Amino acid sequence: MAHIKNQQPINLVNLVKKATFSVFFTITLTSNVVQAQPKDPLKEQFIKEIYQNALGDGQCHDWLRTLCKDIGHRLSGSTGAEKAVAWTKSVLDTLGLDSVWLQPVWVPHWERGAKERAFVNGSSRKNSYELNVLALGGSVGTNGQKIEGNIVEAKSWSDLERLGEQGIKGKIVLFNRPMDPTRIRSFEAYGGAVDQRVSGASRAAKYGAIAVLVRSMTQNIDPWPHTGSLQYDSAYAQIPAVSISTEDAERLSNLIKKEEKLTVSLQLNCKRLPDAPSFNVIGELRGRKQPNEIILAGGHLDSWDVGEGAHDDGAGCVQSMEVLRLLKKLNYQPNKTIRCVLFMNEENGLRGGKMYALEAERKGETHFCAIETDAGGFTPRGFTFDAANDVFESQFEKIKPLRPYFEPYHLSLNPGGSGADISPLKPQGGLLCGYYPDSQRYFDFHHTAADTFENVNKRELELGAASITALIFLLDSL
Amino acid sequence: MAHIKNQQPINLVNLVKKATFSVFFTITLTSNVVQAQPKDPLKEQFIKEIYQNALGDGQCHDWLRTLCKDIGHRLSGSTGAEKAVAWTKSVLDTLGLDSVWLQPVWVPHWERGAKERAFVNGSSRKNSYELNVLALGGSVGTNGQKIEGNIVEAKSWSDLERLGEQGIKGKIVLFNRPMDPTRIRSFEAYGGAVDQRVSGASRAAKYGAIAVLVRSMTQNIDPWPHTGSLQYDSAYAQIPAVSISTEDAERLSNLIKKEEKLTVSLQLNCKRLPDAPSFNVIGELRGRKQPNEIILAGGHLDSWDVGEGAHDDGAGCVQSMEVLRLLKKLNYQPNKTIRCVLFMNEENGLRGGKMYALEAERKGETHFCAIETDAGGFTPRGFTFDAANDVFESQFEKIKPLRPYFEPYHLSLNPGGSGADISPLKPQGGLLCGYYPDSQRYFDFHHTAADTFENVNKRELELGAASITALIFLLDSL
Repeated sequence: MAHIKNQQPINLVNLVKKATFSVFFTITLTSNVVQAQPKDPLKEQFIKEIYQNALGDGQCHDWLRTLCKDIGHRLSGSTGAEKAVAWTKSVLDTLGLDSVWLQPVWVPHWERGAKERAFVNGSSRKNSYELNVLALGGSVGTNGQKIEGNIVEAKSWSDLERLGEQGIKGKIVLFNRPMDPTRIRSFEAYGGAVDQRVSGASRAAKYGAIAVLVRSMTQNIDPWPHTGSLQYDSAYAQIPAVSISTEDAERLSNLIKKEEKLTVSLQLNCKRLPDAPSFNVIGELRGRKQPNEIILAGGHLDSWDVGEGAHDDGAGCVQSMEVLRLLKKLNYQPNKTIRCVLFMNEENGLRGGKMYALEAERKGETHFCAIETDAGGFTPRGFTFDAANDVFESQFEKIKPLRPYFEPYHLSLNPGGSGADISPLKPQGGLLCGYYPDSQRYFDFHHTAADTFENVNKRELELGAASITALIFLLDSL
Repeated sequence: MAHIKNQQPINLVNLVKKATFSVFFTITLTSNVVQAQPKDPLKEQFIKEIYQNALGDGQCHDWLRTLCKDIGHRLSGSTGAEKAVAWTKSVLDTLGLDSVWLQPVWVPHWERGAKERAFVNGSSRKNSYELNVLALGGSVGTNGQKIEGNIVEAKSWSDLERLGEQGIKGKIVLFNRPMDPTRIRSFEAYGGAVDQRVSGASRAAKYGAIAVLVRSMTQNIDPWPHTGSLQYDSAYAQIPAVSISTEDAERLSNLIKKEEKLTVSLQLNCKRLPDAPSFNVIGELRGRKQPNEIILAGGHLDSWDVGEGAHDDGAGCVQSMEVLRLLKKLNYQPNKTIRCVLFMNEENGLRGGKMYALEAERKGETHFCAIETDAGGFTPRGFTFDAANDVFESQFEKIKPLRPYFEPYHLSLNPGGSGADISPLKPQGGLLCGYYPDSQRYFDFHHTAADTFENVNKRELELGAASITALIFLLDSL
């Protein structure tokens, strides 16, 4: 509950002037982990104050409640997305920033329509039941009709090819390759399975399939269908695609083995509407020394149209907003420009990220570092850094001296991926960074009805906001 | 889902014989973190297999379900504790271990009795309400009577002293010093507040208080009273003590400021019964080379009498059991004796831990390393090591070369605390170790009705079991 307020403006020049000379640690060959970097005690102290404020008097959890409970899900082009733009801008407007603005961007507008339905039709009553499905984002609908076909299973792409046109034409394909539970970072397991969701429809359509069911992207066996976007290959027919829960995928797989003539019927009411106008929401504290060098913290404001987009990515949005609130509250006067960007349309188009990079290029802006937080509001583990190949080594060199500051907080700074929204900035040569929370529970919630406010832990969320703010403070000192 | 089975027995001698010569990493002065240790690729491979089995085909989550859902809470001396002893022994009996046995120990037997009740009696209907309280473990009851007294608040020990006999005699004291939310490791915040629960009753009784309410031990504002043990100082009267939720503590604190004559009434039906017979449950794989060197993995089987003792410490029990199951399943033949110990009575007496150490001394056993897992079933962060002062340096030296094996799993090995149950082994000179999961959510559940099976994440639990097994495998190679 305790928190510390700074009555005096702080800036890094003062901090550095007052800094006592830090002692370099001696490197000993017998030690496994060697500290070669000094720490500035004034910087250490300021980081402590960041954590004290974020944890003792934080705002982001309350913001997330409003975003999830009052606004709800926020698919691009929806009323929810529109409300979220207006509300987050209004919050940024209260923080006393130097500028807050909306950056226009046209976004894809896909709607689920009335709840999709699917049925398994077996030879007995026991083997005939309704499936809980979710149309994949971007899927075509069934024009108000029910479509029905034999169901065949592919656990791999080679299964699909083995089935070929003979085994697939006129049928429905169940893609049922599990995420590998033995991968320690769950995002790696996701990376190893999500190609089914992204390209399964077109790869099955190539052989004449009339629809696909895709096993949900989670390492759990759970009852939730997990949605997400697909991409149609223009070479093939666009066929309907839905996700089914891992529980249902296992059950259906068993049934397929028993009943050769098993069918599945589907009715999808989703459709693609004309692109809609929307916005990235941006606020910034202007740098005193190098205003043209930008440090960006961002998440994406859009979400899927189930659940509340709490972990994905309400958490990242409110943490990015909290960065500016904390720095402002601590009277921190930045050297570089520190900017919060809430990107629109990460989930099904990346239009916000692309527009942001385009505008940055047009204005000749330089991003010293862009940090994306889009991996859930879980307990922080560290940050990973990326940059264009030719500059990565030199860019990452400047990060290494920051490591000792994060040791008391058990955070690592390592090379690795960053984020989708900031990826279009990569060719511009700056440093990209991904905030990396613990990933073990992410796919319990990802793209499901269970991604709600209640499933975000206040303390974990606040620790994340503090960690990102601390990194930005240190980057500002470079 | 994939998992790998080893058809051939594996032992470390073979592993080492087959090992290719590992290259030492060069130490560079510019690098912040320096790898000075080699890794044996065969050991790396075996650790991978441990993780694959634990995550792809683990057993501990199912075991935890039975322990929590079929048996439930397990306070020392209760029927639940008795059932848990019998059931865990029966499970260990199925694992094909070299020995499984029960180690007798007499334990304190305290019972809550009928639900305790408490009321705030204010000057208006609005300010008069029932409080949700939990008697602290070990508290005396009120002999079927309702006791009532003015309520005064102490936010610190100096508040208490300032109130003194004049302010306290005949009254009820609310201890209301919060856990500091700004401590990164939540156990440190717990350490800074739990003295109120442990010694508050006697310190208030010293000034003539007739009862105490203690703010629950959590960094959250939540509606759950969190119980836990107290210790009476024999110099003072034993007075009733209950915990109240942080929400209620805040509300009551505000009311105390407004109403000088506010009273609280309490009725507690708890009592201390004669000590009861119980057991530590032990199973082991006998070492082939150094059978007299023991590596211990343990948790405590008893729990508080609310919730299901899922994180505290069902998780630690099933993880310790899983260690032996995994090693056995992988046909691992240990050099040293690997032992799983499920201690009885950690929560309110530590009798199991004390008896275990006494018996170890009597039999002349040597504990090469004892690992306790009693910090919840959360995502693993690492291990901390402790030993008697005069041997710590030399003991910890042997751990350092193991660090590189844990890097791919993002686990640290550092000096630090171990666990209550194994602490009586410390004077015997071996290495003590605490399994260290992420601590941010621990006090959401600790000692409350919310500590249930549903709140333990399968994957996080399994990762913990794999991590402990990997450490034991490496310790066995030393």
